[in-house]
Amino acid sequence: MTAPLGVFDSGLGGLTVVHALTEALPSEPIVYLGDTARVPYGTRSAETVVRYARGCAGVLTARGVKALVIACNTVSAVAVEILRAELDLPVIGVVEPGARAAVAAAEAETARRGHPVKIGVLGTQGTINSGAYPRAVSQLSTRLEVVGQAAPLLVPLVEEGWIEGQVPELAVRRYLEPLLAQGAGVLVLGCTHYPLLAPIIARVAEELAGHPVPIVDSAHATATEVAQLIAAGRIAPGSVGPRLEVLVTDRPRSFAEVASLFLGERAPEVTQIDL
Amino acid sequence: MTAPLGVFDSGLGGLTVVHALTEALPSEPIVYLGDTARVPYGTRSAETVVRYARGCAGVLTARGVKALVIACNTVSAVAVEILRAELDLPVIGVVEPGARAAVAAAEAETARRGHPVKIGVLGTQGTINSGAYPRAVSQLSTRLEVVGQAAPLLVPLVEEGWIEGQVPELAVRRYLEPLLAQGAGVLVLGCTHYPLLAPIIARVAEELAGHPVPIVDSAHATATEVAQLIAAGRIAPGSVGPRLEVLVTDRPRSFAEVASLFLGERAPEVTQIDL
Repeated sequence: MTAPLGVFDSGLGGLTVVHALTEALPSEPIVYLGDTARVPYGTRSAETVVRYARGCAGVLTARGVKALVIACNTVSAVAVEILRAELDLPVIGVVEPGARAAVAAAEAETARRGHPVKIGVLGTQGTINSGAYPRAVSQLSTRLEVVGQAAPLLVPLVEEGWIEGQVPELAVRRYLEPLLAQGAGVLVLGCTHYPLLAPIIARVAEELAGHPVPIVDSAHATATEVAQLIAAGRIAPGSVGPRLEVLVTDRPRSFAEVASLFLGERAPEVTQIDL
Repeated sequence: MTAPLGVFDSGLGGLTVVHALTEALPSEPIVYLGDTARVPYGTRSAETVVRYARGCAGVLTARGVKALVIACNTVSAVAVEILRAELDLPVIGVVEPGARAAVAAAEAETARRGHPVKIGVLGTQGTINSGAYPRAVSQLSTRLEVVGQAAPLLVPLVEEGWIEGQVPELAVRRYLEPLLAQGAGVLVLGCTHYPLLAPIIARVAEELAGHPVPIVDSAHATATEVAQLIAAGRIAPGSVGPRLEVLVTDRPRSFAEVASLFLGERAPEVTQIDL
């Protein structure tokens, strides 16, 4: 039997990465862990996030996963190097692939607009404070500037299912105004919850900028990176067809209900574990 | 030396109870524990909340507190009986005092309006799901009806400091409309974060009802209950003057900064502990 890919997140949001992985790699089995008993990570200290990330990685490596995908921007921002140093398997975060996609989008947009545009990052407090996106972009381009904006209300809005109407629109406007005022010409959705707000983010950004603003979703960039590692022989290919096992640390039933919103298909089987 | 009162909460919100306690009982020393590494509790399962509550209670009893005040509605709603059965000291939750104050307010309002009014409870998902307020009210009055509304966005709004303007007002309106439509004539702020939104809640409720709606804050009702237990000799009185020790499980510095907002005075000393 082929070993699965291990994917973990603080909660539900990482299922956007699972969705992108199953589309890009339909024969890969996946074990997903959502740490719903301790969600959200984005407001916690780096030290605590690292401790929680080690716990999640331990559960998945004990299940024999062949690679670890960190589907959480906050964990990717503060713990990816630590987990790489401590674990003997490929560890893929969402920040580096997201930064790569953002650089490509910003270069295309700079050419289109005829003047340099900056990369704007929306993220949790933990992701923005870490400086992980500016750091990752600076390793790919010395010319591109990055501006960041913490958007702490967007995760609760998505978790509440409040993704349309005046309240999310006002919240998104408040977070986008300073980014666009600082010259952001492309936007990175630097948290796995935000793709569910992408329609509002695109509409408000276009209204504020006076033209469409390209939006980079790191879930797809991450799935592409995993596919490339498999193609390059650095991760063994799977062959059992799509199979998803879901573990959570709290509320398995409500997780299963909301999961279909993220996966665009029927609710998966969900098992509760202690962590 | 006098043993302190132990007070715990999932995070910051319980400081509204500490504030009420220091006003009602200025000579009582207090140890406060905020479980900021696992906040919020209000969205978690009852089983997980009980597990976390046992951990918090263990830290405080190990410090020799003379009584335990659960300054969190969610924990009070699902774990107060369990902690009472397991611990050998007085355990005071916020739900029973809040229900008592709500019954008194509803009876007064019923007399004033000349028709029966219901008690409306705003709370977290965990508190509303538990049915703790209807249960506590039914032990005090067989006539009064209770209607509840989960208001999950209010905690993130307060934690973000977004307590004025259009977004909190729209969120409050959305939660109050169904309560008032069902006949709520008094409102219980069934979460320790909500007192910071009390001005908006009062304004929106008055606008929807066409007259002022009495608002019950369980922090003060709880402080009064503790004072009565001390007066009745069931908790030994303290005599060292106000002294507050604060323990948190994550981010002690940002906790100290926001704490002054809740306490109305300068930031306390905050120590980080593991849990």
